[in-house]
Formats: sequence, structure tokens, C-alpha cells
Amino acid sequence: MKLTILGCYSATPRINTHPTAQILDIRNHIFLIDCGEGTQVQLRKNKVKFNRIKHVFISHLHGDHYFGLVGLISTFRLLTRESDLHIYGPKGLKEVISLQMKLSGSWTNYKLIFHELSSKKSELIFEDDKVEVHTIPLDHRIYTNGFLFKEKEGERRLNIGAVEDAKIDMAYYRKLKQGFDVENEAGEIIKNEAVTLEAKQTKSYAFCSDTAYNEAIIPLLKNVDLLYHESTFLEHLAHLAKKTKHSTAREAASIAQQAQVKSLMLGHFSTRYDNTSDFKTEAEAIFDHVQLAEEGKEFEI
Amino acid sequence: MKLTILGCYSATPRINTHPTAQILDIRNHIFLIDCGEGTQVQLRKNKVKFNRIKHVFISHLHGDHYFGLVGLISTFRLLTRESDLHIYGPKGLKEVISLQMKLSGSWTNYKLIFHELSSKKSELIFEDDKVEVHTIPLDHRIYTNGFLFKEKEGERRLNIGAVEDAKIDMAYYRKLKQGFDVENEAGEIIKNEAVTLEAKQTKSYAFCSDTAYNEAIIPLLKNVDLLYHESTFLEHLAHLAKKTKHSTAREAASIAQQAQVKSLMLGHFSTRYDNTSDFKTEAEAIFDHVQLAEEGKEFEI
Repeated sequence: MKLTILGCYSATPRINTHPTAQILDIRNHIFLIDCGEGTQVQLRKNKVKFNRIKHVFISHLHGDHYFGLVGLISTFRLLTRESDLHIYGPKGLKEVISLQMKLSGSWTNYKLIFHELSSKKSELIFEDDKVEVHTIPLDHRIYTNGFLFKEKEGERRLNIGAVEDAKIDMAYYRKLKQGFDVENEAGEIIKNEAVTLEAKQTKSYAFCSDTAYNEAIIPLLKNVDLLYHESTFLEHLAHLAKKTKHSTAREAASIAQQAQVKSLMLGHFSTRYDNTSDFKTEAEAIFDHVQLAEEGKEFEI
Repeated sequence: MKLTILGCYSATPRINTHPTAQILDIRNHIFLIDCGEGTQVQLRKNKVKFNRIKHVFISHLHGDHYFGLVGLISTFRLLTRESDLHIYGPKGLKEVISLQMKLSGSWTNYKLIFHELSSKKSELIFEDDKVEVHTIPLDHRIYTNGFLFKEKEGERRLNIGAVEDAKIDMAYYRKLKQGFDVENEAGEIIKNEAVTLEAKQTKSYAFCSDTAYNEAIIPLLKNVDLLYHESTFLEHLAHLAKKTKHSTAREAASIAQQAQVKSLMLGHFSTRYDNTSDFKTEAEAIFDHVQLAEEGKEFEI
């Protein structure tokens, strides 16, 4: 898994800070997460191939998380996209995109498929052979979901030396990877564990865009490899965080610590802060493995 | 009058080219004309004071002319704007902005006043003591207006030496500027023309965003000081211009020449052209005073 931060500031786009947008690459499957104004330019800057984006996840309908989506949809059309585009987001998103397309007399020459969300419980919203995506219900001023991306258990890996020593025909390799015992050329049963290794460890990424401090999400975040948790404010503005249903760096760290995640990334910084290093300092008082989102930066998970 | 080009390319925002947006400053009165995605960042780059914008004119509801508006409206709220914002644009604009605000649970702490346009004839849509704005009905794929900005005739200017020689009391200066004859201190009637000068010449600017070649607009453009006319294509793609209801540089120049405007500015270049100098060459074959729109550049009218 590789995460690219396209924007990690709150509220309003400025010359060098951009609203929330991220690209998650899981085994060459590209997911766009949130899409603030200007995201399509950030995609260009970061050399993301537009036609590789097949799935977009929108956490909520505050402008800094989705105002760039309609422009991106239009640009896909201009680029003569043909493949389907799946959009996951709160109820209402389809209406607003459809209205804008109607008013502009536009259409898409590809299929635009909306998966509108309204459940307040975590649900499985996407699944293929490699990945599953679950919602993480967040506590914000309007209906908001985070998203949990989990790699699926891969196949067992052949211990190729052992396989050859056991004289197993190549025709059985597929079955070995699937975990079965097989016969060798001499007709003996070879135990799977004797000639295969554990599947590569699966990784997980949790994206919590905008939320008040909310312990209810902790069970969903247990042991994730990377948790992105918003920290719009530092503790000195905790009253503002409470009022606007955002979190402080300390609160984000507390969630990370309780969920025993492997690593925490902070983002959605208020543009009032010129320097984000204080966020790291504040969070590290609670939790050891803290990093800061940074625009244009790639993170291996 | 001073015109600042924030964006002058068609279709889709890229790293160094932006969709249509312009700032027109008429005697310190600031008008925003069109508002493609990313316009608020372009405003920052060009150091335009956000709260000085009181009137926004939107030519039509293709995304590259208005997708930045909703974000700008949100940013005005975050900047705790208090003064009214007037928005002039096609019917439908209020619905789409209102829907987006409703979905985000947002409001404005200033008054947002929509002036929706639907007439197919030129009409006076704005007037104050300094300026009037008329629509220019254009011929595009959807309902589209250009805008004609005309300075109003100013007051006559005092010839201060002559006024003093004629011994006119300062109390009469106001009346002199308004064109009246007045009495001097000795009770003699002083003819207005003897002590005043012509009002400063008024200027006019016509903005024609997206349009097919359309001779019907020529009477409205007669003698304007500056005509901005789109030229999405060069003549080699005239068939594409016709199909998409855009203009070539040559067609724009032909309109300028027939309307006897003082100067023509070309813009709305297709992003397929890396270099815009060919637009100037093509237009200059027809009309002498051609300039090219250029992002971040100011033009005195």
C-alpha cells in the first residue's frame, strides 16, 4: 500500500495548501479519497494517471472534501474516459452532481455509478479479490464517514526449495498456494505447511477525515497499520475543536493509542497554523509513532 | 479601468493554466467576471482583497466558468464577510449553490443576492453612479451572456486657474462640475464652459466568454475600448469551433474589426495549444490592435 497526500489542510484552498485529497494505491488498484477544490491539479502535479482512478470515496459534503469532484468528473469526460467510475459518498452527492451536469448540458461518455451512504453503522461498501473497504461512522457536524481499507489475506507463498525437494508437479502449485495438501510424483501426500510459507502480511489503512474525539470508532481501528486522523487544532483551541466537532492532535493521539494502531498520521490542519511541527510534539506526548501529512509526499504502509 | 486576468484557458484547470476568471476594477469598484475552479487561489496569487468583491458576473453554467464560485462563497463566510454579495448569472445558479449549501449544513453570515438571467435580449442588469453593466447575448451550446461594462459620463472638471481668476466662491464648485453657469462674487454670470473642462473620457469593456461567430453582437460592441473575445481555436480547427460553438482567432478579429473596437484581447485558448502567439498572428491578419490574455497580467483600459 502506498498513500499519497494531495491536500491536508482544512477549510479553504490557498496557494501552497490544499483541502483534503489522498490517493491510496493498493497492489496497483488506485483509490481517490476525498476531493477538495483543485484536486485535479494536485493529481497532475503528483503525476497520477487519471484513468487509473476507478473508485472515489467522499467522507462528507463539506466543500473542502468534495468541491473538486464535479470538475474531475468533467475532466474525465474531456479525456474521453471509457471505464466506469464508482463514487461512494453521502446521500445527496448524486443529486448535486447530476444537477450541475444538467445545467451545463453535459453528459459523461463513461458510466458514473453512485453508491450513496446513509447508514450510521459501519458497513462493507466495496470488495474485490484484493481489498475490502468499510465505513467508519464519524461524529461531525453533518453525516460523515471515515473509510477502512483492508488488504485481503493473500495466497500462501511457495517455499520453492522445499517444493522442488518434495518433487511436486507444477500443476499442483495453484492448490499449494490455496493451502491444500497435495500428492507428489511418487504418490506421497505432502503436507501444505511443509512446502509453503505464510501469506504476505496484509496491511490496513484507516482514514478519519473530520471528527470530534470519538471513542466509538476505536474497535474499528484496532491494530491498523496506519491511521490518518484529523487534528484541525492544537489543545490550546480545544474549545473550538469541541464547538466545530473537530479534534486536537492530543485527541487524535489518544484514539491511536487506545486502538493500538501501528502508526498515526495527523492532517486536516487549520490554515491558521504556519508550522505543523507542534502537532507532532503534542501528539507524541501520548503516542510514539506519529507522522505529519505533507502535501505531495508518498508514504509506504 | 484596470483588467486583471486570473485565468484564460478553456475546459480544464492544469498546473499553470486556469479556467476563465477576470477582475475588472472600475474607479476602485471591483467586479469578478466568471469564476472557474481554483479562482480563489488565483485571487490570492494576484493579491485581490476578497472583501472588495461585491459583484460577480457568471456568463454561463459550463464548469470552467463557475465551478470555483461555491468555494469562494464558502471562503467569504470563513473570512467573516459582512457585506452583501450580488451574483448575476443564468437561471439555475441559485438552485445549485443553494443545494450545495444545504447539503453542507452551511449558511452565509452575509447576504447572498442572486440576479438570475434568462432574457435573450441585451438588458441593463447593474447600475450605480459610476458604472452600468449590460448583457451581451452570446451564441453557445447553452444559455450564455457576455457583459458590457460602461463607465458613466463623469462630472466636468474645474479649470482651477480660470475659476480663481473669475472669483467664484467655493460653494459653487459643485454646481460648476454639474455643468451649470454660476454667479461670481461680483454678481456676474460666469458661463460654465469658460471655467470648466470636459469630463474625463469614459471607458468601456466588453467580455465575450464563449460564443460561436455571431454578427448579432456587433452593434452592442461598437467602439468599445477593449473587447475580450474568446478564441478557443485557430482556423485550422474551424470545423471544431463550429461544432462546439466556439470561435477562431480570425473570427474574433472579424467581430472586432466590424465593431470598430479600439483593442481586441483574445483568450479562452484550448489547452491543446502550447504557445498562444499564433492566435495573435492569425487575428492580426484582420485587425490591427490585438493582444493576448495572459494569466496574472494587468491591462489598463
